[in-house]
Amino acid sequence: MTKNIDFQTGPSKYRHWRIEYDGEIANLYMDVDEQGGLFDGYELKLNSYDLGVDIELADVVQRLRFEHPEVKTVVMQSGKEKVFCAGANIRMLGGATHAHKVNFCKFTNETRNSIEAAEADSGQMYICAVKGSCAGGGYELALACNYIMLTNDSTSAVALPEVPLLAVLPGTGGLTRITDKRKMRRDLADVFCSLEEGVKGNRAKDWNLVDEVIPNSKFDAVVQERAKEFAQKSTRPKDAIGITLTPLDRKFAKDGSVSYSTVDVSVDRSNKRVTITISGPDTDAPASMDAFQEQGANAYMLRMARELDDAILHLRLNELELGLIVFKTQGDPERVQAHEDLLLNNKDHWLANEVLQYWKRILKRIDMTSRSLVALVEHGSCFTGILAELLFSVDRSYMMEDEFEGDNRKICAISLSASNFGQYPMSNGLTRLQTRFLGDPAIVDALNEKLNTPLEATDAYALGLVTYALDDIDWEDEIRIFMEERASFSPDAMTAMEANLRFAGPETMETRIFGRLTAWQNWVFQRPNAVGEDGALQSYGTGRRGKYNMERV
Amino acid sequence: MTKNIDFQTGPSKYRHWRIEYDGEIANLYMDVDEQGGLFDGYELKLNSYDLGVDIELADVVQRLRFEHPEVKTVVMQSGKEKVFCAGANIRMLGGATHAHKVNFCKFTNETRNSIEAAEADSGQMYICAVKGSCAGGGYELALACNYIMLTNDSTSAVALPEVPLLAVLPGTGGLTRITDKRKMRRDLADVFCSLEEGVKGNRAKDWNLVDEVIPNSKFDAVVQERAKEFAQKSTRPKDAIGITLTPLDRKFAKDGSVSYSTVDVSVDRSNKRVTITISGPDTDAPASMDAFQEQGANAYMLRMARELDDAILHLRLNELELGLIVFKTQGDPERVQAHEDLLLNNKDHWLANEVLQYWKRILKRIDMTSRSLVALVEHGSCFTGILAELLFSVDRSYMMEDEFEGDNRKICAISLSASNFGQYPMSNGLTRLQTRFLGDPAIVDALNEKLNTPLEATDAYALGLVTYALDDIDWEDEIRIFMEERASFSPDAMTAMEANLRFAGPETMETRIFGRLTAWQNWVFQRPNAVGEDGALQSYGTGRRGKYNMERV
Repeated sequence: MTKNIDFQTGPSKYRHWRIEYDGEIANLYMDVDEQGGLFDGYELKLNSYDLGVDIELADVVQRLRFEHPEVKTVVMQSGKEKVFCAGANIRMLGGATHAHKVNFCKFTNETRNSIEAAEADSGQMYICAVKGSCAGGGYELALACNYIMLTNDSTSAVALPEVPLLAVLPGTGGLTRITDKRKMRRDLADVFCSLEEGVKGNRAKDWNLVDEVIPNSKFDAVVQERAKEFAQKSTRPKDAIGITLTPLDRKFAKDGSVSYSTVDVSVDRSNKRVTITISGPDTDAPASMDAFQEQGANAYMLRMARELDDAILHLRLNELELGLIVFKTQGDPERVQAHEDLLLNNKDHWLANEVLQYWKRILKRIDMTSRSLVALVEHGSCFTGILAELLFSVDRSYMMEDEFEGDNRKICAISLSASNFGQYPMSNGLTRLQTRFLGDPAIVDALNEKLNTPLEATDAYALGLVTYALDDIDWEDEIRIFMEERASFSPDAMTAMEANLRFAGPETMETRIFGRLTAWQNWVFQRPNAVGEDGALQSYGTGRRGKYNMERV
Repeated sequence: MTKNIDFQTGPSKYRHWRIEYDGEIANLYMDVDEQGGLFDGYELKLNSYDLGVDIELADVVQRLRFEHPEVKTVVMQSGKEKVFCAGANIRMLGGATHAHKVNFCKFTNETRNSIEAAEADSGQMYICAVKGSCAGGGYELALACNYIMLTNDSTSAVALPEVPLLAVLPGTGGLTRITDKRKMRRDLADVFCSLEEGVKGNRAKDWNLVDEVIPNSKFDAVVQERAKEFAQKSTRPKDAIGITLTPLDRKFAKDGSVSYSTVDVSVDRSNKRVTITISGPDTDAPASMDAFQEQGANAYMLRMARELDDAILHLRLNELELGLIVFKTQGDPERVQAHEDLLLNNKDHWLANEVLQYWKRILKRIDMTSRSLVALVEHGSCFTGILAELLFSVDRSYMMEDEFEGDNRKICAISLSASNFGQYPMSNGLTRLQTRFLGDPAIVDALNEKLNTPLEATDAYALGLVTYALDDIDWEDEIRIFMEERASFSPDAMTAMEANLRFAGPETMETRIFGRLTAWQNWVFQRPNAVGEDGALQSYGTGRRGKYNMERV
């Protein structure tokens, strides 16, 4: 699996999803093309999915938010007879590398979180209308929707058969959502997760696996009725017109470096690192949200977001050996802040809200990225507001102190804006500043007093905003030593360490999915009982069961 | 490593710890016998430890609570020059099976939790007095103490060098305690965990890695001074006399079954399961706590606790293939309840408190046991109070309904006591009933109305206290099918599934250690970069670094 995976797609390219717009309601059909797998060696039968199917789904979800403000309810359903969705494709999983499996699950989890949050963040509610078998990842997709409806016939059932059938976990949020979202009694959850055939009809409702069970003859009508009812309660705007998410301005160089209009991704393969430089805007902020809407996908705050998001996903999936991501910025901080302020001052405008919510999701994606992250605050940089937030996402940061010989750029300073105090919560429910100063919450209050005040290195260091402030004499050596050292560590130990250090404090359903559940799934994904030659994933479909070593660990 | 590991020990057998009693203060010296390893193939140099060292420590901690009510402060320190503790022995880890590594870490974690909780639960505070190098598991031991004192000299330092040196995690609570207990800033934590040599002197205090740094010349005096100060604030009783934890009455049969005075462990090797039957008391409850104290370790509630605890630990470490534990009870429920009630009615008596706190720890140990757990509520059983709590610890439960042919035992009933509503919280901070009914907290209130009311199968099932109520016709077949099915599943998938389903709802530092941190550590413990032929654990001490595959996962 060495092919470069592209996360950019659009409606004209979809092979697996169809969408029909009916005013406030969008009917979204999963209709996977068996021959449309991202890699060779498997067929996507029974609406099973691979990463390619999920890249399209993520695109659908994103466009529904930006291009279709009129849509208040999305009805997710199957375009096939007798099956809703059979989950992740087993042959694909059987053939995938460990790293691909882990990255695949992470991205699908992020997409499901984005579906789940659409109601609270954007007033766009997802109904899952289940007809036919809805198993494994299929039911996990349903679990991420806000309302699950199940038809009552002899074959339609919801199931999490991973444990009995495949010796792996329902790892795309399944186990966590049945306990934490559906709040199933744990002994019933134990029974449910042991049943290959799953649960159908009224028992599915009794066990709170679905929200409503409807006679088959009335199913389609009741689904559309519910969609209309929910649409009436939506906070989605009236008469708003969407913007089009146009293709990204993106160029790949031969060495793997990528350049976008505001984001530059520079690869240093021999040192196993990559530098992402974000450029500040070269024009003033739009005068109003009308002007912003006019610019559409070209507006700086949205363009930069889409470019950074694409860059992170590209590095995650396609550049496994670049273990360190270095973040830099260059530009006019006041101008950056003016662009962000337009959105912050118009949060009740649907499009401003969508852009801010999107930034929230991107920052969470960065938090979840298993690469060592470092920020270099150099002269001429513009770490303010949303870009300052990057400093609290990284594992450590270095800031230039005083003048540097031959460097005529403006002495660097960090500015906090109101957005650093609540606009972009982490998945643990706290702001990054709250998480950073868990031991001394008074510091966060003190920082709030410094709003929109440029803080040079001495102050930024004293306030705990950066890890190191270094002058011209130490800068290069210290950073070189750090980077060389980091490149010498075991990447696995770094991944596991960062997954623990980054998420101090409270846990939420989201952190439990990425922490507890994912870590256990990744463990299982290495066990011979699952992935060995005689393991369950290889044996699936051959008629023989996996051969297990029966020792408990 | 097929030797049977025995968790029973006592002061006369200690090889690695010394303890000196000085009134309210106990000076506990770690002085590991290099030649005293539990297995062959490694020497326990530099106060490094293996499971055998930790079994002694757990025994020390337990006896301090029961045998030494006069001890208010425990000073943990090294009996060796220049080294406090080098952590878990690396050669032992390098040679251990995956299952042993995982079980070793789990037990050491439980012992550290028990040390940490001694202050709140028993008024017994642990000071860690660090002189010399305190690295890895050594610093994790310090982190579990309530107060850390570090001497200020050129060699004494605290360190978590696992990531740079060994490509594994500080997995015995280390990463979690620095973020959640010591609330270190995450970027400083990142720096600290990358430093092989660790941090010494005032910086250790500045980073909150220790509570106090003291000049070397005054160190010993100040430590004893603090110990006295803390003793004055202790809630430990005055003039109480301890009881002796006498050797257990325990017999091993040839087939691996074990019988204790109140606990019977019956092995069914071909079916890969084991039945633990707990017998109710054969005498009335002691009339008072004086009478209880007179009986000492022979008192039913304490004897049963020690026997059950030993049985669980034995099964965990020595019987890896027995994947299903079946819990049964037989006895007079009213008598069981009378024994528990004596303790519940005398919670302010130090010994009653100790026994109840011990039960809390045992139930947590059961929650953390990676075996499928089931309870069978048969006629003649005594699932009341503390024994009813077992029903909410297991993954599922079956209860006999109505009369069974040829069964003259008393029709079974379950009784809840006040203890089920707060006495034995899980590690998530909730009671097992609260966790069970997370989706409908009103049920817990309704159950509170049924206190001390025997509930036969129909009622117990309707109230959600058991998973199944089965009559004579279905009982045997249903249970046989369940057990056969369970024995056919992958043990790894079960372990990971249960680790997710058992701990719904909130997370605490404790659940984060056993969930997030442990799951990641277990993952790392399978990665070639750590445990492969060229991995860091094998390369340690040979002068070469581990060879790493540099792909990030």
